[in-house]
Amino acid sequence: MFPKIVIKNFTSRYHSLTKLPTINQLFHNVANKSIKDKDIIPELNCHIQSIKTLKNVTFLDLFDGTSSHPLKLVIDNNMSTHKDILNELKMGQAISLSKWTVVETPKRTQQFELSQNSDSRIEILGKVQEDYPLQSKQKLTVPYLRSIPLLKYKSNYFASLIRFRSLLQSQLIEILTSQDFIMCNPPILTSNDTEGNNETFKTIPKNLNLTVSTQLHLEILAQSLKNVFTISPCFRAEMSDTGRHLAEFWMLELESTNLYKLEDLLDCVKYLIINTAESLLSYKNIDSILPNDNLLPSNTLNKDQIKERWSHVANPDNWKHITYTEAVDILKEHYQNPPTWGESLSSEQEKFLAESYFNKDKGAFVLISQYPTSIKPFYMKQCPANDKVVDCFDMIFPGGMGEVAGGSIREVNIDTLQKAIGPDKTTDLDWYVDLRRLGSLPRGGFGIGMERLIAYLFGLQNVKDAIPFFRVMKDKISF
Amino acid sequence: MFPKIVIKNFTSRYHSLTKLPTINQLFHNVANKSIKDKDIIPELNCHIQSIKTLKNVTFLDLFDGTSSHPLKLVIDNNMSTHKDILNELKMGQAISLSKWTVVETPKRTQQFELSQNSDSRIEILGKVQEDYPLQSKQKLTVPYLRSIPLLKYKSNYFASLIRFRSLLQSQLIEILTSQDFIMCNPPILTSNDTEGNNETFKTIPKNLNLTVSTQLHLEILAQSLKNVFTISPCFRAEMSDTGRHLAEFWMLELESTNLYKLEDLLDCVKYLIINTAESLLSYKNIDSILPNDNLLPSNTLNKDQIKERWSHVANPDNWKHITYTEAVDILKEHYQNPPTWGESLSSEQEKFLAESYFNKDKGAFVLISQYPTSIKPFYMKQCPANDKVVDCFDMIFPGGMGEVAGGSIREVNIDTLQKAIGPDKTTDLDWYVDLRRLGSLPRGGFGIGMERLIAYLFGLQNVKDAIPFFRVMKDKISF
Repeated sequence: MFPKIVIKNFTSRYHSLTKLPTINQLFHNVANKSIKDKDIIPELNCHIQSIKTLKNVTFLDLFDGTSSHPLKLVIDNNMSTHKDILNELKMGQAISLSKWTVVETPKRTQQFELSQNSDSRIEILGKVQEDYPLQSKQKLTVPYLRSIPLLKYKSNYFASLIRFRSLLQSQLIEILTSQDFIMCNPPILTSNDTEGNNETFKTIPKNLNLTVSTQLHLEILAQSLKNVFTISPCFRAEMSDTGRHLAEFWMLELESTNLYKLEDLLDCVKYLIINTAESLLSYKNIDSILPNDNLLPSNTLNKDQIKERWSHVANPDNWKHITYTEAVDILKEHYQNPPTWGESLSSEQEKFLAESYFNKDKGAFVLISQYPTSIKPFYMKQCPANDKVVDCFDMIFPGGMGEVAGGSIREVNIDTLQKAIGPDKTTDLDWYVDLRRLGSLPRGGFGIGMERLIAYLFGLQNVKDAIPFFRVMKDKISF
Repeated sequence: MFPKIVIKNFTSRYHSLTKLPTINQLFHNVANKSIKDKDIIPELNCHIQSIKTLKNVTFLDLFDGTSSHPLKLVIDNNMSTHKDILNELKMGQAISLSKWTVVETPKRTQQFELSQNSDSRIEILGKVQEDYPLQSKQKLTVPYLRSIPLLKYKSNYFASLIRFRSLLQSQLIEILTSQDFIMCNPPILTSNDTEGNNETFKTIPKNLNLTVSTQLHLEILAQSLKNVFTISPCFRAEMSDTGRHLAEFWMLELESTNLYKLEDLLDCVKYLIINTAESLLSYKNIDSILPNDNLLPSNTLNKDQIKERWSHVANPDNWKHITYTEAVDILKEHYQNPPTWGESLSSEQEKFLAESYFNKDKGAFVLISQYPTSIKPFYMKQCPANDKVVDCFDMIFPGGMGEVAGGSIREVNIDTLQKAIGPDKTTDLDWYVDLRRLGSLPRGGFGIGMERLIAYLFGLQNVKDAIPFFRVMKDKISF
């Protein structure tokens, strides 16, 4: 009686990995006419985001995490097959639908809804307890959602966030691999403490460090393979408890023997971010990935505000480059508590430059180069024109995220490097010095903190929300 | 006098990240005519793979890790600008070329060579020591190359291997994200020991485990987001020292609420691998990624043999599915040392099934399902038809790699799960049980050992070669 259809994934290039569709695939299939009005969906599993009961009809908004758009389900309260279940339906429940009819609704915001026929069934697969916290229409806050890690991804906003993280990573990988950067997996267990800050986690057994940065290993690879990058977890047992620090975070690190001049390195990091913002803006499915404007927690950006942020970052005019010395001079002239030349810049000073000095309205992306040698790690190359500074940069973002990336040209002169390492650490880093005796090309690279980048691009206040499950030193980790 | 050209990356969709080209990009640019005969290459950095000196002319084969094809450089020995440097050139040196002329050579195997003009310069940027081990034409073995981690990626074979690993990962990500699987980064630091084998690394400070599998966290995500996956490092402090074990390895783990029937889960893992093999076979740039047949170490596969392996894996006829019980019966009838029902299968028994019983010639890909409950972890779902076994599978590959993947339907019944966990572990895994009270959908998933998959697809004997820098328990790790 009803047409039988098999759901096809909306990309047809590959064999289907699942028989059942996602809600996002249904939207695509209706849009591209591979599912039509009056077709029957054999089976769909999802959860109930909201319920609205009228006298004769019940409306459900259904979600499965794959799209920010709700799938509308319309139940006829008087149809005998559903009378029993109607009173039991609750927000948050996991349900299974079988044999519901697609009804196109071209005049409404959604493309279609699922409507009942005499074969339609709805079954509750996963119950929720009475105190289920994500009650409909309540304006749940981000800090509250952050506190319920088992449930937070059932909220439209956090589901959107993780879809965005996935998209951002895959876009970065496409941008880099299309330009002959090879994706690598350097080791996590290592004998090194690259940054030399004594903030490593050690392991039992073997007393190894968890990597704080994969840079030194990426240099081995870049020396032979030219352009390499990784997106890897890094670990820092630091006690800072701010909206910008995590004990476990992911870093995109890139190293290249085609980047041995500081200006080229600055262009690389800048255009990597610009490419990324442009590719996000032109991504065809972006509206189903970004959060639903009707279900936003307070103090978050809506779709248009997020895209506006991407347009801002994609515009090269909003990028500024100054040297550390210039930064100190600006701060001396315009900021209440300026640094003395030779000191690190505080996050407040960085914030002033990125959020007030260059563009008071929307902020600027500030590349600060050539910091004093004494406040930077051993591996950075002495600046040829000034032996008091190194050829390095920090990339400062507005939006409260501060330093999102840092990088440098690497020291390849063996004597200068040995001197910078100092006699104490020679044994640990012998191999790193030796690398320069093995047909070594000059090179540079940088690391981008993925969670800070995600936080800026999505408008988050706290990097804890930019990673699926955050780890910080002060918290007990119990799962 | 000579035309001035700017090298463009062969993909024009994005802003260039580097000004200098790779050798692979030069090959592409010549093939697509954006570089033409007699054009000048402003600058190129690479290393010398081999040198051949004749009376009037010197030929260099140049590599930079981006292509398996050598770039040929032809030096006129009598041109005054190079006389000084000719005697100093050595294999392995890092060099910089400026202003060399492209000469198309359509009749030879390579498309073009670089030839000298009066402006051409060659400079040695990175010297090598007298005992530089990768001497030209010497048939270097894989175990020897494995023993020199700082240099092994200057060999054509290992460079190819890492390009392949990069391609495989990006193809897997494309295949999965195109089918609405969301890429996630579950935590590495965790309180769990998912497999319960007491083989975790612990951390100082905080006494956390390094994850042995991200499955339990992926279940939180799948419960809300339907289809999720990760490619993450995992850690097992196991003492096994074989060609199939690493203390740090990468795993593709996938979890989905659309996969709650064992047959669908088996199809998913099978077609994920088949999709991957097909996409590798059709990848347009594959010949520059695979190793150069003229520079193969002994006991390795050449390009055609590698592709033959991919065709073999892409053919569904070479995939077999048997239950554990059927496997035991086959072994009892055909194998000298069969297991008793209830015992684990040994790697020799698995090898017999995948390499002798089903396809003596090229081997088969064997999915063995429904193992005894007693030899599998707590989270696997009891088989509805037989309470002595669980709805799980191991995927056995030929080529010496054995178990490449394993997965299961997950137990969602709270009582059955509590019983399987046992009273001792209740506190640690309370959250995992609680997850089933939060609107839980039935689900399944699996993990694929990336290094074993890479090893099979590339024809490696040892997973140590499938990861950039391997870590095993018995070795001292000094970099």
